[in-house]
Amino acid sequence: MTERMNRQWRLAARPIGTFKDSDFQWTQEPVPALKEGELLVHNQYLSLDPTNRGWANEVDTYLPAVKLGDVMRGGAIGVVEESRNPSFKAGDHVSGLLGWQEYAITDGTGLGKLPDNPAIPLTAYLGLFGHIGLTAYYGLLDVGQPKAGETLVVTGAAGAVGSLVGQIGKIVGCRVVGIAGSDEKCRWLTEDLGFDAAINYKRENVLEALKRECPNGIDVNFENVGGVILDSVLALINVGARISLCGLISQYNAAERVPGPYNLAMLIVRRARIQGFLVSDYMNRAGEAMTALGRWLMEGKIKYRVDVVEGLEQAPRAVNKLFDGSNQGKLVVKI
Amino acid sequence: MTERMNRQWRLAARPIGTFKDSDFQWTQEPVPALKEGELLVHNQYLSLDPTNRGWANEVDTYLPAVKLGDVMRGGAIGVVEESRNPSFKAGDHVSGLLGWQEYAITDGTGLGKLPDNPAIPLTAYLGLFGHIGLTAYYGLLDVGQPKAGETLVVTGAAGAVGSLVGQIGKIVGCRVVGIAGSDEKCRWLTEDLGFDAAINYKRENVLEALKRECPNGIDVNFENVGGVILDSVLALINVGARISLCGLISQYNAAERVPGPYNLAMLIVRRARIQGFLVSDYMNRAGEAMTALGRWLMEGKIKYRVDVVEGLEQAPRAVNKLFDGSNQGKLVVKI
Repeated sequence: MTERMNRQWRLAARPIGTFKDSDFQWTQEPVPALKEGELLVHNQYLSLDPTNRGWANEVDTYLPAVKLGDVMRGGAIGVVEESRNPSFKAGDHVSGLLGWQEYAITDGTGLGKLPDNPAIPLTAYLGLFGHIGLTAYYGLLDVGQPKAGETLVVTGAAGAVGSLVGQIGKIVGCRVVGIAGSDEKCRWLTEDLGFDAAINYKRENVLEALKRECPNGIDVNFENVGGVILDSVLALINVGARISLCGLISQYNAAERVPGPYNLAMLIVRRARIQGFLVSDYMNRAGEAMTALGRWLMEGKIKYRVDVVEGLEQAPRAVNKLFDGSNQGKLVVKI
Repeated sequence: MTERMNRQWRLAARPIGTFKDSDFQWTQEPVPALKEGELLVHNQYLSLDPTNRGWANEVDTYLPAVKLGDVMRGGAIGVVEESRNPSFKAGDHVSGLLGWQEYAITDGTGLGKLPDNPAIPLTAYLGLFGHIGLTAYYGLLDVGQPKAGETLVVTGAAGAVGSLVGQIGKIVGCRVVGIAGSDEKCRWLTEDLGFDAAINYKRENVLEALKRECPNGIDVNFENVGGVILDSVLALINVGARISLCGLISQYNAAERVPGPYNLAMLIVRRARIQGFLVSDYMNRAGEAMTALGRWLMEGKIKYRVDVVEGLEQAPRAVNKLFDGSNQGKLVVKI
């Protein structure tokens, strides 16, 4: 066992702007022997998410900053190869923050065991049946509280979370307008996923387009982006609007501090709220979401796609697909 | 009756920055005869509020912008002199948006009749028993939802609303920290009103002072100010914090658009919310607040002061006391 090598991406520098190759170091070290209580996981799929960028900054977020020299933090799925922990046995599939590496040794803290269901591909547990599905489900339904007949605007709408949010919004009975970064993505939203309208923010003035597509104003906004797009949404919110703040991807790569919305006073004028949330607060209610998402998937009411990049060595470049908008669905790396 | 003259302040120009004398025109016109359904109110006290500044801009807020040439909008209290409206009779005291003028003719829409209680000074209906008291009561209790043992930060704390909010926070059992603009105001907050601490934002770094005075972080923020102060609060909010957004006085006089908070991402990290509100939404629940505020006043649990400026002709200059911080309590003009 100690002869086996573990290849890893370690954080080598604090990124400025988007990740660069030089922000990571490709290292390898022998896989050590297990201590009592530990288990060895062979990682199979690595989840790449916008939040990865925040973790690499010097400042702590909802989790401590990744230390320079440490293995880069990342959600992953793997199979237990060896266990000296009574809660896990060899062959179990597990998910957790296993890191950008081929093998992880852990005491099992925070690790989830995956159900043994051959009908569900493993990558689904990094997406629809994982943090992505829970984020969309609770971020929209619990934080945004959409009602039938209301208008929902989803930003980052072609992303893994956003594309689900819009489809759930349709199930609720909302008019759903998505904002995305290419005509192809917009077509996917309206033609394949059933969004009522989609706006390509790179080609259109978002405020004008929202005025056109939201003739009755905006009641709920599932916000992944921030910046000018959030300001445009704020300009058109209705009385009592709810903005579910999931992310601010427009500013994750900014080298300088990014100002918040100029239209903040609209929250007063429209008696509206912006509410942030983290999916981790909903883990104890995961069952409800999984049941609903699974049912909708089988009923054909939601569609879901995964963008698989081959090879752990590609992770540092692949993660930037989240920020240049070139990913097509939930981004994962096959290790 | 038609011989009597009505002196009025009309909006003459869109203000840039704080109000200037030239933004208003002092006019007079005869008081016309009443039509069926109308009543004539002799105004007695005019309420000056930060929101006056917003109403004077070209852009509509929660009310339509005041048109150039129109009598300046303002809350006021007066006595009915003559009535051809069956709901009001001569001698009734009323409050409503009667404007910056000596006499108002109205059909009674939006007008409230004041109780006939000689123990309560008329100015109280522009303050503690009016929109000020309701704003503090519902903005804190309904929107901010403070709980005993939590830390409440009140900005604009020496203002009419803020000073009440802090005292209600103490009644709830919070640690209350106020932010105000002079040492004298800070002393008033801590020595007379029972705030646990007060920070003079003109003399101290607000972020550092908040770290010192809020050792357990911030759970509730009653926000009147915005800008750097809101950013400092956001930096220190606890998980689940509620920011009750009442006003953004730091930007009402800005000639250019003012950016929102730089620390907006803290809403995600701390699963917190910013919620705007308008007191007008709580008018149908006024009784509950009045009863509680009246009881607390009689029990000596809240104190309240009024800053009376003599003479309607002083209104344009007096209103700027709200923005330079020189008012001492609820600002009213005795007409």
